[in-house]
Amino acid sequence: MTIEEDLTALDALQAHLFAHRHATTSIMFAGETTDPAEAAAPRAEALATLEEEVHELLCRAETGELLERLGKAAEAGELDETRAAQVRVLGRERAERVDVPGGVQADFARLCCEAQSVWTRAKRENDWASFSPYLDRMVASMRAIAELRRPGHDAYDTLLDDFERGTSRAFYDAFFSQVKECVVPMVAAIRERGWQPSRSCIEGTFDHDTQMELARDLLELEGLRASALTLSETEHPFTDSVCSAHAYIATHVYEDDVISNVYSMLHEGGHAMYEQNVDPSYDRTILNGGVSSGVHESQSRFFENYVGRSEAFAPVLLTALRRRFPGRFDNVDAHELYLAVNRAEPGLVRTEADELTYPLHILIRYEIEQMLFDGTATAADVPALWNERYASYLGLEVPSDTLGCLQDVHWSCGDLGYFPTYALGGAYGAQLLDAMRASGVDFDGACASGDLAPVRDWLRERVWRHGRAIDPMPLIEDACGERLDASHYTRYLTEKFSAIYDL
Amino acid sequence: MTIEEDLTALDALQAHLFAHRHATTSIMFAGETTDPAEAAAPRAEALATLEEEVHELLCRAETGELLERLGKAAEAGELDETRAAQVRVLGRERAERVDVPGGVQADFARLCCEAQSVWTRAKRENDWASFSPYLDRMVASMRAIAELRRPGHDAYDTLLDDFERGTSRAFYDAFFSQVKECVVPMVAAIRERGWQPSRSCIEGTFDHDTQMELARDLLELEGLRASALTLSETEHPFTDSVCSAHAYIATHVYEDDVISNVYSMLHEGGHAMYEQNVDPSYDRTILNGGVSSGVHESQSRFFENYVGRSEAFAPVLLTALRRRFPGRFDNVDAHELYLAVNRAEPGLVRTEADELTYPLHILIRYEIEQMLFDGTATAADVPALWNERYASYLGLEVPSDTLGCLQDVHWSCGDLGYFPTYALGGAYGAQLLDAMRASGVDFDGACASGDLAPVRDWLRERVWRHGRAIDPMPLIEDACGERLDASHYTRYLTEKFSAIYDL
Repeated sequence: MTIEEDLTALDALQAHLFAHRHATTSIMFAGETTDPAEAAAPRAEALATLEEEVHELLCRAETGELLERLGKAAEAGELDETRAAQVRVLGRERAERVDVPGGVQADFARLCCEAQSVWTRAKRENDWASFSPYLDRMVASMRAIAELRRPGHDAYDTLLDDFERGTSRAFYDAFFSQVKECVVPMVAAIRERGWQPSRSCIEGTFDHDTQMELARDLLELEGLRASALTLSETEHPFTDSVCSAHAYIATHVYEDDVISNVYSMLHEGGHAMYEQNVDPSYDRTILNGGVSSGVHESQSRFFENYVGRSEAFAPVLLTALRRRFPGRFDNVDAHELYLAVNRAEPGLVRTEADELTYPLHILIRYEIEQMLFDGTATAADVPALWNERYASYLGLEVPSDTLGCLQDVHWSCGDLGYFPTYALGGAYGAQLLDAMRASGVDFDGACASGDLAPVRDWLRERVWRHGRAIDPMPLIEDACGERLDASHYTRYLTEKFSAIYDL
Repeated sequence: MTIEEDLTALDALQAHLFAHRHATTSIMFAGETTDPAEAAAPRAEALATLEEEVHELLCRAETGELLERLGKAAEAGELDETRAAQVRVLGRERAERVDVPGGVQADFARLCCEAQSVWTRAKRENDWASFSPYLDRMVASMRAIAELRRPGHDAYDTLLDDFERGTSRAFYDAFFSQVKECVVPMVAAIRERGWQPSRSCIEGTFDHDTQMELARDLLELEGLRASALTLSETEHPFTDSVCSAHAYIATHVYEDDVISNVYSMLHEGGHAMYEQNVDPSYDRTILNGGVSSGVHESQSRFFENYVGRSEAFAPVLLTALRRRFPGRFDNVDAHELYLAVNRAEPGLVRTEADELTYPLHILIRYEIEQMLFDGTATAADVPALWNERYASYLGLEVPSDTLGCLQDVHWSCGDLGYFPTYALGGAYGAQLLDAMRASGVDFDGACASGDLAPVRDWLRERVWRHGRAIDPMPLIEDACGERLDASHYTRYLTEKFSAIYDL
């Protein structure tokens, strides 16, 4: 085989993987947004078969030989940077699967399918006992799979590294200890102070269709290309994509909470901008798409929080609200709006948490996941562990598992090891913001003018365009000129909430 | 290989084909309904790669050997009827592809892709000259492919048989000559009579969202399961499905024409009911789905015309209109509505034609397609041939190719040989209606009551549930107790329009 023949084969492999990504994304997006009830079973069957095909494409011997030959060529400097990155990322995708027998992986997929429907009912009926055995089985199964992939390695470390390359328990322990040191005393100080800003200026009922028009306004304001975006509705907002020319956002409108969808749009819009702005020459290759959960969350939370909840942006947001809801915000001023959307108050539900208390919700999940993998706890212990931590970190009594350890979907999908990336994304974002300012971008001016082009240009150049070609840690280091440093995040939280609460 | 092993392999093959059908249907439905502009290019790439995979699944040597072994087992009576039908239908799908080199098929697919975008612009700009060379190239390419598949056989016959097994030029020549003999003099007699019913009772502006509510009412009235239906909007209405548990309808609402969407719904609902009512045990097998274009059109046109445009159904339709548009139809009586939706008047546009003139639109296309394949005409001759025929069959002068030979999308997709199935569907439907009545179904009573269950039960038993397991001609023969006989159709048209126009 010549290198040219091998590269042709590499392109063919990537074309097949792209077609499968397009297929599964299309099927799943319809599943989450428009599919009728009976469609669930055939959809699951189709997705399972397509997944089998991807497994076969990546794991068959000839793919292994191809990637090995090209890996040697890359080492010998015979491939350009892009090709070398393709070979590296494909090699990892293969490595994550190849040592796990198809049957074991299929059993786990089926277990997750079953667990999800059990969880849905359990959450509705506040019935941890029915979900509990599934969580134990999932942990056992994930531990076994991790052991097949990296024998002798800590299983939870393997999972953490899957979601965010370069992370581990040691990494997150240090990270969370730094975050906790900042957040816990601030939350206590706010509680002590006994004052909270009013939210009355954003309360009331807001028509569904007009909220969808507002949603489109906000996505346009952020800078998304409508020509490359599908916008639909679902239960839990999310973003997906097939390439830089086609991102998908699904949102949820609550007529009694206009602010919920405003921040969903700014958040999901951040994810979608990352996807739309990956180098278009990476389309149809393995390098397309965001590099990791943490970096993805850093972009969504950047636009949701660092832009969207900034004081500079408040007048722009107020103008957007007034445009679609004439008369409704006439007596509101921008500072009042700023305070209303930044009320820091311990709550039971992660997805509704403010910026300050948010990482504590994550920390609780991270601590419990470790105990499950360590064997120091089983699923039956989770409600007590959960409730103890909500009492101690957030000062709250958890009235039910529905509002407690059953609230999130992640465990039922087998996404253990995912939660920490949410908090990490916040830290990446704060550091990117400081680096952006240091490099001369007038961030507050951009927010205040509503023209975010300078912000986008900076992120596009340093983060978005690289897609999966650069790993998260080097990507952040290159963008910021220093390695990840959570003190940017803690400083941001301290300054912002000290000012708001006059601490 | 034991038969059991071969049947396991057959199931695996069908599972892969099902997954690909689900994938392409999902991708294409989104493409026609919700995809943004930039998504077109990646969608086309994904579809091309998935099509390559289907080609590979069907055409690889091991599939040939599998089908050959199972074909012998079927001949020896060792397979049950369902398995034998699966082997037969899969064998044909393979035969249609296996002698056409992948490259030739891919070139044709690319030609069609290009031709479609050229046609879109050409139709908009009334520019036949730009589309003309593409039509010539497509005919040449289709002739070459047909020759590879059935050497020495008439190429157009091969295409006709693809869309409707058992048909040929000889078949359709006889069919259309019978239809023409009925329709042409009636159209002339109506013109001579000089009277047309008024359409004023259905004119006016009707709100988009309320029309969509009416659409759902009509689909429910027909008997579709909403739990197995996606309803969306598009430019040109169509129906698709992935299995009996999930059909897709896309419609188009014109605010200045409420009746357009009413009949689109009844028509597409007929297609979707066929798909929803195929034997569920055929899901994920090659036997799922409608058996042919003609039988599919027989079901859509059955509900659109035989039910929807019947005098018995007019009061039910009026009630449905009144419910969603209170006050708007108070002064309309059912007979007036019946006449308004049955005005038989030559027009330029096929998709807007009434039941009587409709087959003449089809005949014109059928005649021109034959000349293109015979070599007695090239694409450059088409506008003149088209306009001559519209003058002679319909008495109309065609003012532009946009309203003439550029009106339909089919030729730009390479769907030559498809049009005749529309007229044939009308004939199947009329014969099914007579058989239904002869077997004791109170058809008019069902229409008048709005409870179509007896009609559905009859069609489900004799047509729908069989999916692709019985070929069109034997299916119609079994259902009707006699072979296809177009005199049911001509008698229906004669009686109906003689009564309306008092001929």
